Amino acid sequence: MKLSQLFTKTVRENPKDETSVNAQLLERGGFIYKNSAGIYSYLPLGWRVMQKIADIIREEMNTIGGQEMLMQAMVEKKYLDTTRRWDVPVGFEIRGKNEEKANFVLGWTHEEVLTEIVARFISSYRDLPFAAYQIQTKFRNEPRAKSGILRGREFIMKDLYSFHTTEGDMFRYYEEVKGAYHKIFHRIGLKAIYTVAAGGNFTVSNTHEFQVISPIGEDIIFVCAKCEYAENSEVSKLKSGAGCPKCGAKLTKEKSIEIGNIFPLGTKYSDSFNFRFTDEKGEKKLVVMGSYGIGVSRIMGTVVEIHHDDKGIIWPETITPYRAQLIALKGGETEANKIYSQLTREKIDVLYDDRADKTAGEKFSDADLIGCPIRLVVSKKTLAQNCAELKKRNENETKLVNIDSLRSFLLG
Amino acid sequence: MKLSQLFTKTVRENPKDETSVNAQLLERGGFIYKNSAGIYSYLPLGWRVMQKIADIIREEMNTIGGQEMLMQAMVEKKYLDTTRRWDVPVGFEIRGKNEEKANFVLGWTHEEVLTEIVARFISSYRDLPFAAYQIQTKFRNEPRAKSGILRGREFIMKDLYSFHTTEGDMFRYYEEVKGAYHKIFHRIGLKAIYTVAAGGNFTVSNTHEFQVISPIGEDIIFVCAKCEYAENSEVSKLKSGAGCPKCGAKLTKEKSIEIGNIFPLGTKYSDSFNFRFTDEKGEKKLVVMGSYGIGVSRIMGTVVEIHHDDKGIIWPETITPYRAQLIALKGGETEANKIYSQLTREKIDVLYDDRADKTAGEKFSDADLIGCPIRLVVSKKTLAQNCAELKKRNENETKLVNIDSLRSFLLG
Repeated sequence: MKLSQLFTKTVRENPKDETSVNAQLLERGGFIYKNSAGIYSYLPLGWRVMQKIADIIREEMNTIGGQEMLMQAMVEKKYLDTTRRWDVPVGFEIRGKNEEKANFVLGWTHEEVLTEIVARFISSYRDLPFAAYQIQTKFRNEPRAKSGILRGREFIMKDLYSFHTTEGDMFRYYEEVKGAYHKIFHRIGLKAIYTVAAGGNFTVSNTHEFQVISPIGEDIIFVCAKCEYAENSEVSKLKSGAGCPKCGAKLTKEKSIEIGNIFPLGTKYSDSFNFRFTDEKGEKKLVVMGSYGIGVSRIMGTVVEIHHDDKGIIWPETITPYRAQLIALKGGETEANKIYSQLTREKIDVLYDDRADKTAGEKFSDADLIGCPIRLVVSKKTLAQNCAELKKRNENETKLVNIDSLRSFLLG
Repeated sequence: MKLSQLFTKTVRENPKDETSVNAQLLERGGFIYKNSAGIYSYLPLGWRVMQKIADIIREEMNTIGGQEMLMQAMVEKKYLDTTRRWDVPVGFEIRGKNEEKANFVLGWTHEEVLTEIVARFISSYRDLPFAAYQIQTKFRNEPRAKSGILRGREFIMKDLYSFHTTEGDMFRYYEEVKGAYHKIFHRIGLKAIYTVAAGGNFTVSNTHEFQVISPIGEDIIFVCAKCEYAENSEVSKLKSGAGCPKCGAKLTKEKSIEIGNIFPLGTKYSDSFNFRFTDEKGEKKLVVMGSYGIGVSRIMGTVVEIHHDDKGIIWPETITPYRAQLIALKGGETEANKIYSQLTREKIDVLYDDRADKTAGEKFSDADLIGCPIRLVVSKKTLAQNCAELKKRNENETKLVNIDSLRSFLLG
């Protein structure tokens, strides 16, 4: 993509109404646009990142047998009446222009909908287990939407649901999902801590969260550095200063961002919908369920909170909008054009700063702000040695790379 | 995908509450699920088709320079107040549980939102032209949602918007989009007729539609068989029986489905938002806009209306959920397992009917209903000749294909 054609532009000043680093940098870089409190549009650069995050999640969900689908956003009252969740305050009500009463809510979770759907197809133990998921825009009426895209009223989420004959089988799959989640967060460049948490609207028993330590997070967790144990302060008995329940070591108190969660739902929803299967002995039993969420847009915000410096974003290679930002300086334009065409033909994604009316300084600032992992500069000076200057976003040194070996440098 | 693992199942009987062929076949085949009137979920098979349609559209939109993004679903009142479209009856209002008045509407179109967004970035003639698009769930309060997924209250749409310095440049791009649309519909297996149509909520001048002739369509168009001319009856002066305005030939009256439309918006929205650019002479002028829609879910429905027989759907190869349906019959299970693993490794998408508790007749019926372009049968009888039996969904003959050459048959 040529920067001269990209319709967004970078902005030098922080937006006045944003206090979080993720919103400041993402808005200044032209990744997102704030339409309303807690409601953002994803601009071309931001949408590329979001699609890459979604693709990584999709790949790992498919690997553990998740079947992708898409449920509706307009959830009819009948669904939430069944589980008495119609009046939960996070739900936005939907009304036709001439209707007095709302009969729909904007989907904020889909246990009820999916339970009804799968109940049409599942009757025998032979039909179980299975898991289905979607990557979808969700809506929650957060009274104080803040923290940029970490907590929006409209956001994108992956929600997976699994269905089993026994609690044991559900917990077996629970461990598979846990493994897949760790892989996803690792691939995206986030160190996630598996944390014991409370129930909530969804479930009665304990649940688990994946937490990323960051000062902007809304959660407080207690982490044991010695063994792999962490507890959300909501459920923690450790506030008093007691040691780790596993090894007795002292725990660290951290303010933290929840980027994923997994819930053993048990038979809560199958009971409400009387969703049963026939077991080997011909007995009708309730289906056992689990649900598993990842905040896709929240991940983009978290990555920015974790991976940035005072100049801008530092994208992990797996989710960067472009592999490299190529900058043409005076005397380097013709050769830079050629390099851009060649790399594009080779399917290497390059953001090409071909703008004639910008200074070298402005171009360097924009590259730092946008945050692609590699910066390539082509100028009269570098061309004198048949080279481009290569600099990694997270390193300070520059080096000259022969133009003919750029391709292998970028692929490796 | 193994049919024994896919959580959906086919249904023999037509759903009682659906009268359209698309809804009947898509629900029976396990492609969609009706959640509420005019509101459907896309089940795994249907979601695969939808993603393939979206990818074809995406590819052609990128080819004509469209920049993909995603705008919000919750559109604040301020946007529609600017163009006096807040009270348009198709808008669903959104309210928090404790709010008396709605301050948001579910996005049914995004001219206002995108105009505000791009106005932040565009100031000079040098920034123009450009085009941005999204593939997004849209919401319209259709009083009588019917015709299955041809007209839903919640549906998936591609909307592209273009921005120009002059009307001439807008009409130049208009022709590019027209070309891209013809390519898309051709690739998807639909014969679309370019049709002159009326304005509507969006624009004051004439617009154009892409119509597919089908008895279920809600539109009536007049088509000239001789020259490539068609008019929507809404604007037609031809109702009286007059001839084609181009060649004078007799016109045919057809009931028809609108699958795409293109609108020369002119300065309607830039005027409302006072969205101006500075031209070469330093004068401030209104930006000229166009908007271009394709109904993504409607296309899936239209394809089913056009491509089916009394046994089920006949998917075009470009959007089929799976390239082939592989059926294991008695004595062929072991070899069918091998073939399935091999084809899957080679990235050839196969739906594998490995169900042990179904008869050959049931498996054949399901393959016809689901409608993959190729059916492969592996049985004791075919294996006697080291072959699988291959049948195309749209042909009657079967032929034996050597197992070792299956791969090249499926790739070709």
